[in-house]
Amino acid sequence: MKINRFGEEKIISLINSKVSTTSSKVVTGIGDDAAVIDAGDRYEIITTDMLVEGVHFNLGFTDAYHLGRKSLAINLSDIAAMGGEPLYYLVAISLPGHTKVQFVEELYRGMQDLALIHGANLIGGDTVGAEEKVVIAVTATGQVKKDEIIFRHGAKPGDLVYVSGFLGDSAAGLKIMFEGLRGRLAPEIENYLIKRHIDPEPRLNLGRRLAVNKLASALNDISDGLVKKLWEIARSSEVQIKIDPETIPISDQLGCFSKCLDLSPIDLALHGGEDYELLFTVPPDQEVLLHKNKLLVKKIGRVVMKAVQGEVCNQDGHLLLDQGFMHF
Amino acid sequence: MKINRFGEEKIISLINSKVSTTSSKVVTGIGDDAAVIDAGDRYEIITTDMLVEGVHFNLGFTDAYHLGRKSLAINLSDIAAMGGEPLYYLVAISLPGHTKVQFVEELYRGMQDLALIHGANLIGGDTVGAEEKVVIAVTATGQVKKDEIIFRHGAKPGDLVYVSGFLGDSAAGLKIMFEGLRGRLAPEIENYLIKRHIDPEPRLNLGRRLAVNKLASALNDISDGLVKKLWEIARSSEVQIKIDPETIPISDQLGCFSKCLDLSPIDLALHGGEDYELLFTVPPDQEVLLHKNKLLVKKIGRVVMKAVQGEVCNQDGHLLLDQGFMHF
Repeated sequence: MKINRFGEEKIISLINSKVSTTSSKVVTGIGDDAAVIDAGDRYEIITTDMLVEGVHFNLGFTDAYHLGRKSLAINLSDIAAMGGEPLYYLVAISLPGHTKVQFVEELYRGMQDLALIHGANLIGGDTVGAEEKVVIAVTATGQVKKDEIIFRHGAKPGDLVYVSGFLGDSAAGLKIMFEGLRGRLAPEIENYLIKRHIDPEPRLNLGRRLAVNKLASALNDISDGLVKKLWEIARSSEVQIKIDPETIPISDQLGCFSKCLDLSPIDLALHGGEDYELLFTVPPDQEVLLHKNKLLVKKIGRVVMKAVQGEVCNQDGHLLLDQGFMHF
Repeated sequence: MKINRFGEEKIISLINSKVSTTSSKVVTGIGDDAAVIDAGDRYEIITTDMLVEGVHFNLGFTDAYHLGRKSLAINLSDIAAMGGEPLYYLVAISLPGHTKVQFVEELYRGMQDLALIHGANLIGGDTVGAEEKVVIAVTATGQVKKDEIIFRHGAKPGDLVYVSGFLGDSAAGLKIMFEGLRGRLAPEIENYLIKRHIDPEPRLNLGRRLAVNKLASALNDISDGLVKKLWEIARSSEVQIKIDPETIPISDQLGCFSKCLDLSPIDLALHGGEDYELLFTVPPDQEVLLHKNKLLVKKIGRVVMKAVQGEVCNQDGHLLLDQGFMHF
């Protein structure tokens, strides 16, 4: 069988079944966004993400500077999704021989600018040739205190479900570029949506505040679409989650865009992906504290009850199917 | 300017000049085979290597199992090159949709088999789609006691230069496959040379013995050709190294191959690359201990004197030019 008929999750399960981890220091391993290692007085976090030209980015739509920023941002987002703080990163990159030196300079300048904001240091990598396509694999490391880490599996019945920021913007930005829709809306609206796609901000500060103040019982970053990420929490925590899609925060810009193109902003928010906002569950007695911290977050649902297989549905009890980004 | 006219070393220097590391815990960063981080009671080692289909491997020549082994082996070799022991690894991989599930199984089985030998644990990764080419980026971590680590920059005048194993085999194996020379020599000779190319053994045990017994003043793995690696030690240590190419250990199989094809085995050993043996310098008073340990190593030269720019020459004083693998 070919992998495109097999699916990403089955591939990861297969790898997991073939590869046994023998170290007792591995707290979370394959299948999570980031690996967590017990380093004695704290947890070490390590994560890697690969971006392939023609699959994850198109050099006609993004410049080298923003490609650099994003390739680091998506890894830092994985660290945010555990409540951690970043430490170091490495960059493995394949470049065709005709790549301009300026492209390389801009790419690393983008990474460095984002890294400086979040205190991450470039410590190594591998720079190799390619026949045609640019491929970037960033590995990032981080750390978090043992009593602060937030996993996916901690959601409990009664917890409230929250998200940060606005969802669906990134999918709209991609649509504008990919479907050649530029010029249909006011430039400031288009530029906002495109920026949200090519320059996502990892929510490290929010992740740290949730961790330090112990506000969240489960945490995920919204890399692949909200519903897919809700399912990850529901399956890991073995709970049923109900959300009200109408309460998902939608930006004014996405509202305009959707109206103009007769699209559902909610659909973009539910399944679009690449928003890199945070999704988390809050124990009911912590909700007051959450608001006291004046975090820019919004309640979209709640954890209803235990459910061994996990379940995600809307307020009417209709299942929300996992239609996130297909990798193959 | 395009990067193929600029060269790999200049690209790395450029990246280094753009990206300032602000952490005092970074012992070695960009430009070394592996990054070294001060973790208090020990050093942590982290390294990443990328293999691109059509550039670093050809699926007509290597099977998935050996591709898996090699993609981990080259990272473990970087850890061996610091005297370290491996701990964990992550695998970022892009696969075209038509890839067979069995290919993925075999690839990870290969990695796992090698990992088990050396005590490394797979802890995570990223599995993504590709348009056409398989690209694998493995990141491996390791550790080493602070008083055991061996850098490239420790070679001193008077030290002896040693290598492990036989050199040039891997280049011959690649030649047999790439130039379609199969059938010119006895199968056992061809199979040996091909195996040396597609299934290199990281010299972790030797690296550990050099480290634990403090036998080496500088250490490097021979990933890109002996001369290139000698230059790395010479430049980092600011010394002149003289070697006698006639003393480089050549396998009987490479001897036969070279005779049959009228090639110089010494040239293959000097510039061929991908042997993944170790190259190291030994303080003269440690040489007795080296032999006492009965290590399969051979003396090929010595460190003559300080030389600020570094210098590598043969016994007659003729410069050995750095003609290692060009990445672009």
